[in-house]
Amino acid sequence: METLTQLKKYSAELVDLHHTLALMQWDQEVRMPRRGAEERAWQFATLSALVHRREVSPELGALLAKAEAQKDGLSVEERALLRVMRRSYDQNSKLPEEFVSEFSRLTSQAQMAWLEAREQSDFAIFQPLLERLVALSRQQAEYLGYPAHPYDALLDLYEEGLTTAKVAEMFAELQAPLVELVKRFAGRLTPLAFAEPFSQPGQEQFAEHLLQAMGFDFSRGCLARSPHPFTTTLGHHDRRITNRYAPRSLDFIFGALHEGGHALYEQGIDARLAHSPLDDGVSLGIHESQSRFWENVVGRSRPFWQRFFPELQQAFPAQFASLGFEDFIRGINAVTPGLIRVDADELTYNLHVLIRFEIEKGLIEGSLEVGALPGIWREKYRQYLGVEVESDADGVLQDIHWSHGSFGYFPTYTIGNLAAAQIWEAYKRYDPGFERTIAEGDLAKIREWQGREIHGHGSIYLPEELLVRVTGAPLAARPFLAYLEEKFSTLAG
Amino acid sequence: METLTQLKKYSAELVDLHHTLALMQWDQEVRMPRRGAEERAWQFATLSALVHRREVSPELGALLAKAEAQKDGLSVEERALLRVMRRSYDQNSKLPEEFVSEFSRLTSQAQMAWLEAREQSDFAIFQPLLERLVALSRQQAEYLGYPAHPYDALLDLYEEGLTTAKVAEMFAELQAPLVELVKRFAGRLTPLAFAEPFSQPGQEQFAEHLLQAMGFDFSRGCLARSPHPFTTTLGHHDRRITNRYAPRSLDFIFGALHEGGHALYEQGIDARLAHSPLDDGVSLGIHESQSRFWENVVGRSRPFWQRFFPELQQAFPAQFASLGFEDFIRGINAVTPGLIRVDADELTYNLHVLIRFEIEKGLIEGSLEVGALPGIWREKYRQYLGVEVESDADGVLQDIHWSHGSFGYFPTYTIGNLAAAQIWEAYKRYDPGFERTIAEGDLAKIREWQGREIHGHGSIYLPEELLVRVTGAPLAARPFLAYLEEKFSTLAG
Repeated sequence: METLTQLKKYSAELVDLHHTLALMQWDQEVRMPRRGAEERAWQFATLSALVHRREVSPELGALLAKAEAQKDGLSVEERALLRVMRRSYDQNSKLPEEFVSEFSRLTSQAQMAWLEAREQSDFAIFQPLLERLVALSRQQAEYLGYPAHPYDALLDLYEEGLTTAKVAEMFAELQAPLVELVKRFAGRLTPLAFAEPFSQPGQEQFAEHLLQAMGFDFSRGCLARSPHPFTTTLGHHDRRITNRYAPRSLDFIFGALHEGGHALYEQGIDARLAHSPLDDGVSLGIHESQSRFWENVVGRSRPFWQRFFPELQQAFPAQFASLGFEDFIRGINAVTPGLIRVDADELTYNLHVLIRFEIEKGLIEGSLEVGALPGIWREKYRQYLGVEVESDADGVLQDIHWSHGSFGYFPTYTIGNLAAAQIWEAYKRYDPGFERTIAEGDLAKIREWQGREIHGHGSIYLPEELLVRVTGAPLAARPFLAYLEEKFSTLAG
Repeated sequence: METLTQLKKYSAELVDLHHTLALMQWDQEVRMPRRGAEERAWQFATLSALVHRREVSPELGALLAKAEAQKDGLSVEERALLRVMRRSYDQNSKLPEEFVSEFSRLTSQAQMAWLEAREQSDFAIFQPLLERLVALSRQQAEYLGYPAHPYDALLDLYEEGLTTAKVAEMFAELQAPLVELVKRFAGRLTPLAFAEPFSQPGQEQFAEHLLQAMGFDFSRGCLARSPHPFTTTLGHHDRRITNRYAPRSLDFIFGALHEGGHALYEQGIDARLAHSPLDDGVSLGIHESQSRFWENVVGRSRPFWQRFFPELQQAFPAQFASLGFEDFIRGINAVTPGLIRVDADELTYNLHVLIRFEIEKGLIEGSLEVGALPGIWREKYRQYLGVEVESDADGVLQDIHWSHGSFGYFPTYTIGNLAAAQIWEAYKRYDPGFERTIAEGDLAKIREWQGREIHGHGSIYLPEELLVRVTGAPLAARPFLAYLEEKFSTLAG
């Protein structure tokens, strides 16, 4: 047990250092003055290299091997700890320190370049950095190794066991039914448009109100503003989210529900896992299932707004006082093929992800050049969504992910959408009176069920294992397609 | 030169890590949810221990010794770099890693305990932590060594070369004349009182306006809110300040001018010193001279408000539209012995510092018990300032410093006040038309002179050396006492 205690101490210190890196990232997006970027990049590189050295140290390797040799009598948590540490140790050991340090420095610079490029809608500003990031990511895939396709190595970083073939199969099942659904429902629900702007303090206040209603614990987290909303963890009792505020958009609502869903996952992890690598969501896909559950399944549902629409009307009378409830519900679910992934409705969203998947696969296998991206982007948006991309800012520059060096991340969004619908079916079996539960605002009932079934376990189970425990089946497209069919048929009347 | 290049790289990485620690501190005071404190303490401890290990590594020791052996032909900056690194290496080498780690963990906890104690005005909440901090600080003095008094070791950390005897001598020169001045002017100028509250957004906006007028560069820094205003550096182009906002106080003005003065120093350091240990103010005393220069010497002067009072009246008509200019000037300079150091006028301020000096000296030499502090505090405030301390929140718990484990810091405030007056005399020799310069709002003229004379040099010169270069003389009490005499005689008519 001596060995295990040492291993826990070692991993706790690594957790500390990763939370420190997460703080640097948070600050960079929320607060840092722009000219601080260059030195922040050095700071990232310096600390990342230090952390990497500890992640691949012979001391850790020896501790792990010794602990693994004494596996008998370990608890479920301890076994999971060994599994998670082994995976991370093996992954990290394959990456040379100079590589890690260069990658880190580059992503810091790339984020600032991306911001500038997006503001000026000029891909050329971002292109040289993206080229280097793609080159490094291809190199990373070679270092890590992969079963069949170099992109497999990157997918696996975000969703353990995911492969290019599995993603391709998932989209093969989804693409035709989604295109069909879009054809049936596009334009049948009238989107909302606002003449009067929402004040920013008003938006912040309402977002906070919704987060409070969901059960986000402000003593263990906070809400800030950033160009691209995100959720991050800086400690077991420090789970933070950001949101964004535009004058005539409901992003402030659905952004808060989305990030709130992520944050409930993080805040719901059992305290016995604190300060360990298990104190984290199990995968990005499962994480996204929680955010989409709150944003879409709950947050765009009729019962949810039976509870909250009167408050929304009160908070923003100029925009809502004279708007009918049914028009509101149809408006927030309007299906409109568009340019921006994060603004997409539930029917078109996964087509946006499909485009990114195809592009990333091409970049990583080397069949696609970075310089060709703006053109390819336009083509694919025309082909899959029937829309014309007018500017890089609303096209290839819209997402922050590549500036983070995150290739292989996007498909987890679609996994999240599928899993959310599958988990929703399980919840409805548990609570057949779900409509009343939500309409009465008893959101704690949902949160507590999620806590027991999903959140509390942190990273103890593998993603697929967890999904089977909760829903009785592995990930499938059927529940999602059935959910869409029922919801939009009803809405369109 | 190979050696020097390696040494510069090594020190640059240490600078990165120290800026990362500074970010953790910034975030703790500006944004962190309260329950994040415990894990943040671990994060501090983990990173501090790592940093400490690099600060005392045999590799660094060997590099330093080798570089020192080849001193000929070095530039002034390179020689200063060796001096600063030698000092830091020698100091750090004396402290065992466990000590550094424990100290770091303890101060994180102590800050949260202090916050709570102050809110509840209950010294007992803070006492056990303060006791451990005093014990550790005494141990620190023994580790570091000292010429005559253990407190010397701690003073020297903040102001190179400062000793208990020098501080005692400084206060011996100041105390009687200050008490005399207070007697003459207390109650002769009517303080301002506001029936109408200032809105917080209005305060923030006016504070920002003043900072812009001083020349604070918002592309290289930012302004946030915290319970205790401070300035920090997270990178050469990332110098941040905080301010606080109370409904009926002018703190938002003088806090901004004070922290703005610190920030101008930091932002004014020459770019060739970026990413090195010389990219920092030379000492706390000189730093404080810059903040007090802007807060008091400039910021409470008649010409400054000739420029800004009309804008203040426009920003806050309910409070100032019907207030006469002379009443305003006398009001912001009113002399009123009070309980709170940071609210103190220029005549009583250093008596607050004297009290802290006497207490710290007692704690560190062991002649004073922590448990006795609330009582001692009451006594000394009665004796030196003639005021009755009603609550610990307005007494012994008012300052954050001890919760940081900072003993020996307070005397640098008085050094700063003396140095500000001495530097003011030098500026007036350079710009005999100073009143017009200020009244016309040409604050860039002052900032540029300070930049050339003080800011640009970073830590190249020793504090005393720098002061002699700028003013022609070592630190003395005379200019400060003369400044007070002239200013308050004129104000009182």
